[in-house]
Amino acid sequence: MTATLSLSSCPIFLAADARVDGAAVEALPNSRKIHVTGSRPDIRVPMREIRQGDTPASSGGGVNPPVFVYDCSGPYTDPEVSIDIRSGLPPLREKWIVERGDCATLPALSSAYGRRRLADPALAALRFPALARQPRRALPGRKVTQMHYARSGIITPEMEFVALRENLNRQAYLQSLRESGTNGEKMAARLMRQHPGEAFGARIPEEITPEFVRDEIARGRAILPANINHPESEPMIIGRNFLTKINANIGNSALVSSIREEVDKMTWAIRWGGDTVMDLSTGKHIHETREWILRNSPVPIGTVPIYQALEKVDGKAEELTWEIFRDTLIEQAEQGVDYFTIHAGVLLSHIPLTADRMTGIVSRGGAILAKWCLAHQAENFLYTHFEDICAILNAYDVAFSLGDGLRPGSLYDANDAAQFAELKTLGELTDLAWKHDVQTMIEGPGHVPLQRIRENMEQELAWCKEAPFYTLGPLVTDISPGYDHIASAIGAAQIGWHGTAMLCYVTPKEHLGLPDKNDVKEGIITYKLAAHAADLAKGHPGAQIRDNALSKARYEFRWEDQFNLGLDPDKARAFHDATLPREASKAAHFCSMCGPRFCSMKITQEVREFAKQESGRSAKDMAEKAG
Amino acid sequence: MTATLSLSSCPIFLAADARVDGAAVEALPNSRKIHVTGSRPDIRVPMREIRQGDTPASSGGGVNPPVFVYDCSGPYTDPEVSIDIRSGLPPLREKWIVERGDCATLPALSSAYGRRRLADPALAALRFPALARQPRRALPGRKVTQMHYARSGIITPEMEFVALRENLNRQAYLQSLRESGTNGEKMAARLMRQHPGEAFGARIPEEITPEFVRDEIARGRAILPANINHPESEPMIIGRNFLTKINANIGNSALVSSIREEVDKMTWAIRWGGDTVMDLSTGKHIHETREWILRNSPVPIGTVPIYQALEKVDGKAEELTWEIFRDTLIEQAEQGVDYFTIHAGVLLSHIPLTADRMTGIVSRGGAILAKWCLAHQAENFLYTHFEDICAILNAYDVAFSLGDGLRPGSLYDANDAAQFAELKTLGELTDLAWKHDVQTMIEGPGHVPLQRIRENMEQELAWCKEAPFYTLGPLVTDISPGYDHIASAIGAAQIGWHGTAMLCYVTPKEHLGLPDKNDVKEGIITYKLAAHAADLAKGHPGAQIRDNALSKARYEFRWEDQFNLGLDPDKARAFHDATLPREASKAAHFCSMCGPRFCSMKITQEVREFAKQESGRSAKDMAEKAG
Repeated sequence: MTATLSLSSCPIFLAADARVDGAAVEALPNSRKIHVTGSRPDIRVPMREIRQGDTPASSGGGVNPPVFVYDCSGPYTDPEVSIDIRSGLPPLREKWIVERGDCATLPALSSAYGRRRLADPALAALRFPALARQPRRALPGRKVTQMHYARSGIITPEMEFVALRENLNRQAYLQSLRESGTNGEKMAARLMRQHPGEAFGARIPEEITPEFVRDEIARGRAILPANINHPESEPMIIGRNFLTKINANIGNSALVSSIREEVDKMTWAIRWGGDTVMDLSTGKHIHETREWILRNSPVPIGTVPIYQALEKVDGKAEELTWEIFRDTLIEQAEQGVDYFTIHAGVLLSHIPLTADRMTGIVSRGGAILAKWCLAHQAENFLYTHFEDICAILNAYDVAFSLGDGLRPGSLYDANDAAQFAELKTLGELTDLAWKHDVQTMIEGPGHVPLQRIRENMEQELAWCKEAPFYTLGPLVTDISPGYDHIASAIGAAQIGWHGTAMLCYVTPKEHLGLPDKNDVKEGIITYKLAAHAADLAKGHPGAQIRDNALSKARYEFRWEDQFNLGLDPDKARAFHDATLPREASKAAHFCSMCGPRFCSMKITQEVREFAKQESGRSAKDMAEKAG
Repeated sequence: MTATLSLSSCPIFLAADARVDGAAVEALPNSRKIHVTGSRPDIRVPMREIRQGDTPASSGGGVNPPVFVYDCSGPYTDPEVSIDIRSGLPPLREKWIVERGDCATLPALSSAYGRRRLADPALAALRFPALARQPRRALPGRKVTQMHYARSGIITPEMEFVALRENLNRQAYLQSLRESGTNGEKMAARLMRQHPGEAFGARIPEEITPEFVRDEIARGRAILPANINHPESEPMIIGRNFLTKINANIGNSALVSSIREEVDKMTWAIRWGGDTVMDLSTGKHIHETREWILRNSPVPIGTVPIYQALEKVDGKAEELTWEIFRDTLIEQAEQGVDYFTIHAGVLLSHIPLTADRMTGIVSRGGAILAKWCLAHQAENFLYTHFEDICAILNAYDVAFSLGDGLRPGSLYDANDAAQFAELKTLGELTDLAWKHDVQTMIEGPGHVPLQRIRENMEQELAWCKEAPFYTLGPLVTDISPGYDHIASAIGAAQIGWHGTAMLCYVTPKEHLGLPDKNDVKEGIITYKLAAHAADLAKGHPGAQIRDNALSKARYEFRWEDQFNLGLDPDKARAFHDATLPREASKAAHFCSMCGPRFCSMKITQEVREFAKQESGRSAKDMAEKAG
């Protein structure tokens, strides 16, 4: 197999030339990276602080304190860190991992395939060049998972980190508002106000404590993906009682894209808000690509190991074996993959349920395993070996993302017997995984019409005992190729509202081709928006802070602040400047949409002004008169 | 006022050079315009027929009959009609209007302003050049509205037209499926199947009859905008028991855009599916721009007359008078505007309710009227003259779009006392309008978080007695400048599902600048998608036909059919071709997203093939064995 690999098959990439994408390391406008320190100095939780201008005197004047927002971009946007992707990111969690004394550094890779790749001189120029990192594994008889610690009553530094991260420095913001002037208390009440949520059983506390994090992980209602071989990752949490997260898929296919492009897509995806990244590469050099991504990724990385296993048997699904798959799991676990999609719920007995579908089995993993099951007339080996898999995941703290191999690929197939049979099986497997203290989330559809989304969430909560749900969209119509990021964002906001913990993004290229960097950004922003809509709808504490600040800026014609508080300051500014490019327009009390005479915001300010001057009569008096 | 107008203020446009936008008249790929004929030969209802290729033998073979979809594009996409925008479209409804014998042709325009504009030689080069059309008005004592006829038990040709239009030739499609081969009945059952809807009280019959249309209009639950001075329009209907419609706003502001650009935006908007178009121009030459748009528009045109009235008093809201406004209504009604946004619900007593808002009054019309009320310390003259307005609208069959002048401009202000006080007033006004047989719809928000959207719809249905709701989005978050088409599509799908009859689109430029043609298309497709998602969710009969056909094409690797059945064939094709441009790839059993080895659709087909060959054992046997 390795004999077929050569530099010529990867003409664009050479490790020696690898450098970070310049666009990914610039600070966002008017923003700086801050760190909130926890109970020990090495718990430093990153956030993005967005500074605002003062309210102009014409709108009453006043200071607008900076707003803190969640920051997935890692050290890339930190001017104090110098980035060299050939050496990778600093191993933030290494000390915490070592301190627990539950794992050993191995003398060599445990995976035969991993060792072969490392020894192949033909790969030298592609290989991540930093000194070989020694893999870690649990000591015999020990468990290293965050779930294990949570259930033992232990709050890890990772848990404290995510508690601080989820609170988004809200108390500091509140304090600044209170101190922002004579009207501080009123301002604070106003800018912190939000609509009551409708949470469908989610119970989100006002303040996330480390103990709450521990409890949710112990209960299985949240996961903290944190492979001990990915010490570069900044802890984050996925669960319905936390902020809704999004995942960005990257990965080359056999046809296009190089290692460099994939690393660029990763840094680009986290810049705009990807909470995790899945590397779905299916072409050559999967192993090397993954190493580059992991060593440079501050967010958890997920994979679908069956893709690589299939490459190892030259694409012949029926030749897959447990041994090949097992070696692949270990190979990837020792590289540091944080969660694995495992399609263990595709049972032989479920396959006939797909026979009358409109679009059959659309999950690649599902299709591969269905083919294997039929060829062997045997039960899915991921199902029969499920506890063996648990034992591996357990030794590195890789989380399960139990794959929905039978998810619907069209509205026609939504919520059908095949889909729900698999989901029920995933519920059984969740119990097994939890028995082994393996963190577990559940993958969901796909394509589902709006009115049948809720049923998906309800069944998941019931059958999978509130293990975090992780859905792809769902798309609420099939007729929008080229706009499927939007069709799926409608479904994603809906299912997020009902309790989905992480939304897997869909890009505009879905169903049509491999996304490029622009598509990745478009998908990310669309999904940040959908996830935020879900947080608002659930009544997540503080969710409306950013909306309130942006709307205040909008009303006061603070154009720069309006751009910068938005999800994509660059695009907002470019759109504005397309018709009013001059600097002076940034203070103008109108935009080209309505022009100066017709700006309702401007007229409203005049209305307020007018009302004030009205010979001492208050607005209330007028109401009494007219009412 | 007219003295300030000159050709130099409109440098781009000269009537003599006006020509149709080439991109707007090309037929859509593999599509042709068909007409379904009604009970008389001049009721010819346009639809778009999308032809499909055969199922390849490798997927079992078979014929795929053409699919019929709703077509807003008018004669522009009809190769049998030659388009010259200087002469306007043929007056499709003229005969029907004349036949009713309820109106007279006037010797001259009734509006003083309209006459002045017509007499001004400086405007000659800008003016729509076809021979002056004589305006029509109801004969004294007669009513010409569709509501009047509906209540009199009369089915107009317009009503029959919309009944045929709403049914989308479904019976013909069903028939073709049944006749498509030996498996015809099974195919028909399959391709017509859809998920049960959740309709929240909407009652949509299997087949729309002319009598049902009449009854819904008589009841006030639907409107058929059809000004007798806009005979070029193809009848369409807006109501919760019909297909969800979308509106596209166009219109120049004082800063940018010429008449030519606005006509182009209109033809572009209807090509992609705008059901109605609102001309919100606020710059100079509003009158002339509107005439060009109306004479060339096959869809109903709406306006906000207060914008033009304000131009007439040089932007000084306090100088507005009933007389100026009245003349503006007549001017526009005689041009053929089909519905007017009238902000008659902005009462003096409501204004103080906005004092503590985050973003005050964001409706331009609302802000203008609030300013007038405060300046005069008097009740809104649109409210005090409401029955006078009814009498005017009645004489031309202009429909009310009762404006939500106090709609929220931020999440903070959503569902507040000001908004709901106005909505309640709009309910009272609906009764008055109905007393005069004036067709009426109700405008809605704005910015509303997901969990509070339903309340908006419920209050509207209750207070406004199910008059059609027409909403702008709503946006479910404020933090997405540059992506507000998406933020609002999430809200639009939700409120459409709950019963909103027409969704006013939002473009990516919302809050930032005037949309250009690209933005218009992006907004339209986004909203077609949201409206369709709502139809599917309500269980609109036949709504899933197009989804099923597209998904079947997708599964069978009929790439061209997949593109053509989508909302935007051009973009889908361009995205696909970005990575696989060669013609041969259009028959390929994979795309660049996954590459040939990993295409799950391909693997599924292999799974089915494999299962078939399995020594006579049926899929069912396998299930028994394994289960």
